[in-house]
Amino acid sequence: MKIIDGKKVSIEVLDEIKSSVDNRVKNNLKIPHLAAILVGNDGPSKTYVNSKIKACERVGFKSSLFKYSDSISENDLIDEIQKINNNDDIDGFIVQLPLPKDINQEKILSQVDPYKDVDGFHPINYGKMALGIDTFLPATPAGIIELIERFKIQTAGKKCLVIGRSQIVGRPISILLSQNKIFGNSTVTVAHSRTSNLEELCLESDLIISAIGKPEFIKGDMVKKGSTIIDVGITRVDDSSSHKGYRIAGDVDFNSVSSRVSFITPVPGGVGPMTIAMLLKNTLKACSLSD
Amino acid sequence: MKIIDGKKVSIEVLDEIKSSVDNRVKNNLKIPHLAAILVGNDGPSKTYVNSKIKACERVGFKSSLFKYSDSISENDLIDEIQKINNNDDIDGFIVQLPLPKDINQEKILSQVDPYKDVDGFHPINYGKMALGIDTFLPATPAGIIELIERFKIQTAGKKCLVIGRSQIVGRPISILLSQNKIFGNSTVTVAHSRTSNLEELCLESDLIISAIGKPEFIKGDMVKKGSTIIDVGITRVDDSSSHKGYRIAGDVDFNSVSSRVSFITPVPGGVGPMTIAMLLKNTLKACSLSD
Repeated sequence: MKIIDGKKVSIEVLDEIKSSVDNRVKNNLKIPHLAAILVGNDGPSKTYVNSKIKACERVGFKSSLFKYSDSISENDLIDEIQKINNNDDIDGFIVQLPLPKDINQEKILSQVDPYKDVDGFHPINYGKMALGIDTFLPATPAGIIELIERFKIQTAGKKCLVIGRSQIVGRPISILLSQNKIFGNSTVTVAHSRTSNLEELCLESDLIISAIGKPEFIKGDMVKKGSTIIDVGITRVDDSSSHKGYRIAGDVDFNSVSSRVSFITPVPGGVGPMTIAMLLKNTLKACSLSD
Repeated sequence: MKIIDGKKVSIEVLDEIKSSVDNRVKNNLKIPHLAAILVGNDGPSKTYVNSKIKACERVGFKSSLFKYSDSISENDLIDEIQKINNNDDIDGFIVQLPLPKDINQEKILSQVDPYKDVDGFHPINYGKMALGIDTFLPATPAGIIELIERFKIQTAGKKCLVIGRSQIVGRPISILLSQNKIFGNSTVTVAHSRTSNLEELCLESDLIISAIGKPEFIKGDMVKKGSTIIDVGITRVDDSSSHKGYRIAGDVDFNSVSSRVSFITPVPGGVGPMTIAMLLKNTLKACSLSD
């Protein structure tokens, strides 16, 4: 069994980005600039945004954080997005999700300039992704593909099960892995809350990508010997033995699963750190495209 | 076994569209107008375009056919598309595929005004489809969904196998059937040329949608008893007994398969006629949206 150390790979990716930034500086090219919009006071959202800003510092990017109260109106938020769209110094930006309930997420995301849409959630970029046209890939699926590439995990002709059909993870990774690309060509099945025979599907799969947020749902007796397990779940679970009072759990019961499989991502330290690295890679791309 | 008579259903859909057009005329609303662009001399393309024009006449639409030689340059074709985009009388138009090899199909399709893109192939509409946002669905998958709805074929929690990952059929129908909609919620697997265990996958499936263009590839011993078979294949096969010298064959060996299954589409007369009906339904929608 080999652990897919996403933490380590993410540092490699960040180092590669840093060296590109250093080269840009040497050549008097623009320094990439990522902005983030944060609406309201959601705790995990604040943590995520801060990690993104911190990662920008590490690689030498400029970064900006635009914070708004959760009472901001949809129209005012759209006005703020237009300002960022028109700000030539900002190469890419993200709207941290989830947004407050009164704000229409679909409407907001479609306001982001597609050329600055480094999350890849604008319909035109999502469509390009589904059509196999070069674009900004959503960061989490891009991170999964990067891990598959760097660990040379075979996908062609393999049975892959994606558990979860979210717009952010399940849907895009299921499309990408089934496309005719080097790290694609899998026979992909998408399972979800209405799937009736999940255990059986798991047992048949060479590659499982789980993104449902059910802590330790996948047990050792549900996975095929020698398979690869990518765990996208990140859930806070009460834990009195931790000084924080909680711990982070994945969808996979690591203890019972890890001994049976060939490759497995840990949680934390697997897909999570890759997500931020790929967001920065998209921002570098956005900046380079406007050179 | 019940035959899914797409010919009959398509006539029902066309009649519904005709009655909407009649109502529009009564209310002094604009008559829907579909245009088609045909480049070159491909025989089947001419036949398809003519069928679309004929269907327009049947439902009372206006139609226009713009024909260009296969020596037209990409830029000139883009200019022609811009003219149609700017022509207020035309509500929707299609670029008949395939285009000549020297013309970049991706580039051309992205020039179509998304509000007139009744084929649903512009990346922004394709993205909306993948995101579950209301848009113009590509006509063939829309026709399959319409058949599933009208024949009340259960999809929720069922195992569905889509054979073929084309942008026009396999990819979109696989996404649509797996979304959380009334006639969705299937557990969908996408098979393709790199899939290694296709027969086994077929045998396990409650619903098979085949779109690979391999005449009579799926035999009776490959399908599950009581399953539903939707055959999107349309291939010309030499046949000296026919006065044309050929016959149209689907992907499914109807004789051996039909006796084992609950529902099956014939070829011809299954999905084919539905495709044109759904294109017209999209055009009516485009026209209504600009009322």
